[in-house]
Amino acid sequence: MSKKHIGKQSVALPNPPSIAGHACVVGKKEGEGPLRDSFDLINEDSFFGEKTWEKAESAMQKMTLSMALDKASLPPSSVEYVFAGDLLNQCIGSSFGLRDMDIPFWGLYGACSTMGESLSLSAMAIDGGFADTAAAITSSHFCSAERQFRYPLEYGGQRPPTAQWTVTGSGAIVLTADGDGPYITHLTCGKIVDQGIKDANNMGAAMAPAAYSTLSAHFEDLAIEPSHYDLIVTGDLGAVGAEILVDFFRNDGIDIAPNYDDCGLMIFSRDQQDVHAGGSGCGCSASVLTGHLLNGMRAGRWKKILFAATGALLSPVSTQQGESIPSICYAVSISNTR
Amino acid sequence: MSKKHIGKQSVALPNPPSIAGHACVVGKKEGEGPLRDSFDLINEDSFFGEKTWEKAESAMQKMTLSMALDKASLPPSSVEYVFAGDLLNQCIGSSFGLRDMDIPFWGLYGACSTMGESLSLSAMAIDGGFADTAAAITSSHFCSAERQFRYPLEYGGQRPPTAQWTVTGSGAIVLTADGDGPYITHLTCGKIVDQGIKDANNMGAAMAPAAYSTLSAHFEDLAIEPSHYDLIVTGDLGAVGAEILVDFFRNDGIDIAPNYDDCGLMIFSRDQQDVHAGGSGCGCSASVLTGHLLNGMRAGRWKKILFAATGALLSPVSTQQGESIPSICYAVSISNTR
Repeated sequence: MSKKHIGKQSVALPNPPSIAGHACVVGKKEGEGPLRDSFDLINEDSFFGEKTWEKAESAMQKMTLSMALDKASLPPSSVEYVFAGDLLNQCIGSSFGLRDMDIPFWGLYGACSTMGESLSLSAMAIDGGFADTAAAITSSHFCSAERQFRYPLEYGGQRPPTAQWTVTGSGAIVLTADGDGPYITHLTCGKIVDQGIKDANNMGAAMAPAAYSTLSAHFEDLAIEPSHYDLIVTGDLGAVGAEILVDFFRNDGIDIAPNYDDCGLMIFSRDQQDVHAGGSGCGCSASVLTGHLLNGMRAGRWKKILFAATGALLSPVSTQQGESIPSICYAVSISNTR
Repeated sequence: MSKKHIGKQSVALPNPPSIAGHACVVGKKEGEGPLRDSFDLINEDSFFGEKTWEKAESAMQKMTLSMALDKASLPPSSVEYVFAGDLLNQCIGSSFGLRDMDIPFWGLYGACSTMGESLSLSAMAIDGGFADTAAAITSSHFCSAERQFRYPLEYGGQRPPTAQWTVTGSGAIVLTADGDGPYITHLTCGKIVDQGIKDANNMGAAMAPAAYSTLSAHFEDLAIEPSHYDLIVTGDLGAVGAEILVDFFRNDGIDIAPNYDDCGLMIFSRDQQDVHAGGSGCGCSASVLTGHLLNGMRAGRWKKILFAATGALLSPVSTQQGESIPSICYAVSISNTR
């Protein structure tokens, strides 16, 4: 185990990178939800001025990174690396969205967990001495994701109650070696967990065991209780997955419920917005983190947050071939103090 | 710029990680090519004992990582991180291939450049003090890639002379903090470069400008001439792209030809194997690096190699929407001495 490793699968960052800027851009439906006041931009046009949904998603990513850089008062040329990903085949949301930025680029795929992955690797790049400034960005778009993973929108496919609604949104974070925080202090990289769930319309159930695996490792590695954090927030387990996660910990005699929430449950009003089990997509946890959560930290509402982005690493082909759903979760400790 | 940065976009690793083990597994056609003696395993069965090509690719990845670990005499439990990716939608070659390995997992997408990306990030994880042991792995499979990017094999689509043949192959490298080398000494992370090439059957032309961008930056950042290396090898530019790259440098008054080669040109005999412009796929550069190149370094044939994996970040959807092809190149310096 390396010197920065603590416990089995976590690392403590000796020089915690600082969040210098963060921004989020979302679509109309997200802007009608309970977090509407936390978004930097609510775009009423699903196409973002483009001709296709995929191009719209790319435009949204570019816009979001530009806004995060503006808020950090940094030009793109100061960014040594951008770590980026999305849900689309061959990750074109990122590669087309960022191709004009002229920033060294690391492409990632972590499904809906990508914001946890990109934020972790950005923090490691800075703490490891490879960069003074790095950016993490992800996006998802309801319309491009439906076309990609499910049915053409025009088909009007019915959704079961366990299904989640892919968020149209993007979140970006600019990290710097020095700054006033909030800081990234600890990381727990997830292992792939597959408990045999095969229902692609119930990704919360598939991802909950991965969240449990990573969070359990995190608490054990750092020798802390869940109450160490003011808020523990999973990516997008939704109503089904969040309940399973709470149950898993209850079986261990641990009650995470008092300070636990899920981005997929926070971003929409399930009563009023007809999203079934909640929001999902890598734009879900990204836009909640870069809006509501980091704004709340800056306002002093929370001092320590554990951001645990979750992802289902399936594809439509794997589902058609009868495969179960491997999932993963990346946990990132964010603190107002170093 | 951080302390490990040199020049504009390169880093020098103060504690160069050592290649403790490397392995490659390929398919029948690759085993009939000029590098046949360098592969650890040539599998005559395109299905690798599975029922679909996607599952075959996953089985190949799992087999390759296991072999690399065996050659390094390390158990999977000693690996703190695996950095992995492939060409399939949602990167299922990696997520399904490695789900049973119980190793913390970072999913990447760099198209055919993924071996350069995974090797770079593995090296950074170790040099940065986050891991003592990390693994990098990628794969591609001719049959799954054809289905993914082009036509069903049964359709028998014609291929223009500029097209390349996706390699069925996987390569894995296990890096350790200490060891006898070869060592990873320098990294240059590429920027996305898009010169407007739109022909998805001419990816060599699309990727050559990215290779030129990264290699130029590398030479400038390190203040070296191409002759610094015994061999400079690009990922899979093929006949068209390799010629363009040599031309680009010639325009700068630099002749890279004497010590330059391309994995896509090395792996097949273009005269005898009907592969048109050469091999491609992230298994191409991965299997050439982990077989022929690293074996050659161990045998003393080369002391310093610059491995410059290249990738075209397109998707079938982006092509159908009339988009050009953004490309990227990651350069990794590998040396027998620290």
